[in-house]
Amino acid sequence: MSPAMDTTNQAEPGALAGLRVVLCRTSHAGNIGGAARAMKVMGLSDLALVSPREFPSPEATARATGAADMLDRARVVATLDEAVADCVWVVGFTARDRVEGAPVVDVEDAAAEALAWAPRGPVAFVFGNERTGLENTELVTCNALARIPTTTSLSSLNLAAAVQVASYELRRQALRRGPVPAAATDAGDDETLASRQDLVALFDRVWKEVAASPRYRSDDQRVALLRARFEQLMVRAQPRRTEVRAVHGVLSWLGAARDR
Amino acid sequence: MSPAMDTTNQAEPGALAGLRVVLCRTSHAGNIGGAARAMKVMGLSDLALVSPREFPSPEATARATGAADMLDRARVVATLDEAVADCVWVVGFTARDRVEGAPVVDVEDAAAEALAWAPRGPVAFVFGNERTGLENTELVTCNALARIPTTTSLSSLNLAAAVQVASYELRRQALRRGPVPAAATDAGDDETLASRQDLVALFDRVWKEVAASPRYRSDDQRVALLRARFEQLMVRAQPRRTEVRAVHGVLSWLGAARDR
Repeated sequence: MSPAMDTTNQAEPGALAGLRVVLCRTSHAGNIGGAARAMKVMGLSDLALVSPREFPSPEATARATGAADMLDRARVVATLDEAVADCVWVVGFTARDRVEGAPVVDVEDAAAEALAWAPRGPVAFVFGNERTGLENTELVTCNALARIPTTTSLSSLNLAAAVQVASYELRRQALRRGPVPAAATDAGDDETLASRQDLVALFDRVWKEVAASPRYRSDDQRVALLRARFEQLMVRAQPRRTEVRAVHGVLSWLGAARDR
Repeated sequence: MSPAMDTTNQAEPGALAGLRVVLCRTSHAGNIGGAARAMKVMGLSDLALVSPREFPSPEATARATGAADMLDRARVVATLDEAVADCVWVVGFTARDRVEGAPVVDVEDAAAEALAWAPRGPVAFVFGNERTGLENTELVTCNALARIPTTTSLSSLNLAAAVQVASYELRRQALRRGPVPAAATDAGDDETLASRQDLVALFDRVWKEVAASPRYRSDDQRVALLRARFEQLMVRAQPRRTEVRAVHGVLSWLGAARDR
């Protein structure tokens, strides 16, 4: 029976501005509208859609009630990598407890971590298809995986409802934190985090060079496994930009050694 | 960046069993289905519907995906008083900041208080009509009023989304609290809280006796105001059953004095 917290007439928490919601391969256009409304009431405004089955759609507009502007501004892209290219932290939502050994944290902890990264650059919360969730290629794009705690007898939330819970959790915690100190947003260049785009460029280079090896065969399962593990390791390490440059440097040296 | 809380494979928190959701005069049957699914994924199972416009309905069933059993079990009643007759604590949801001077607390605090009352008897979370919210007669039935913190530019959540957030908040806090100590559920009779039914019976008696007064006129605005204030006071005081009996005792003495 804690005292009431007056959350009315407060300034919008600045931390919410850098938060993006990405919906991947959404089947039901109505859910896009519902998600847009769910975000807007919680003060989120950045929506990206990866290959939606139908969009724009009258059903999305109907469900968006009051949030049609969100749909007008929504960015439609072909892949998750495009949607999160500029992001420094990407959280994928899953209904599963564990994904390929990677830990899945509670939405409450995922929101706390996302708000901690937010001053460093854009942060994305990513939701998969209503029936099939996120694909493996999308899961390995994510720095962290999160789930919404549900009962065991029915563990699948409606997509718009999941976006509502995640957006609420972000807002709840952002309001508790109060304003973000300006200093935190102004880390030195050495501390600038690599964006997804930086990592994709690095991966492209590594595998292009690997493919140039005379031993390389495109159907080699070991290379595919190596690739998945290497990329996951890098994603989880969440490197600084200077560190990505260091890996590029190593690659250049290796290339020079090979070409000699 | 707190450590992940493992909320998987946990026993269902017992506190959720006594929590009821009441939807008043719902216009869109789809929202009833959405609310039922929102409750079930969070482990809530007690749904009551006050004068829904259309129920049962194919649209409700379609939106309930996996929670059709909730709709089968839902109790349909004519008034909020019937829906919460056995409740010891009733929380009404509103989009407004203040209602007739009564404080409106944040859903987070409302959930904490509801979970504190839950060991004493059924607790209800009440949601009004999609467009008009709760009526004044419904608002005065509630022991407390709660709101979901939203941005000022769009403050109205979809009904099913509001039920989703409230149910999530109850589950989140119930999981953090862990099991309810058995002792707390076994308060002595002196401590048994008056249910809504006990209060309604008391109010009925008071106003029947007031109406018997020769000075009473049914169109007297002062009596209506007196009634509203008296009932609100009693509701807010959340009396024990023994205290309600004491008020009945006082009324009996007054009646005996008058009849002498």
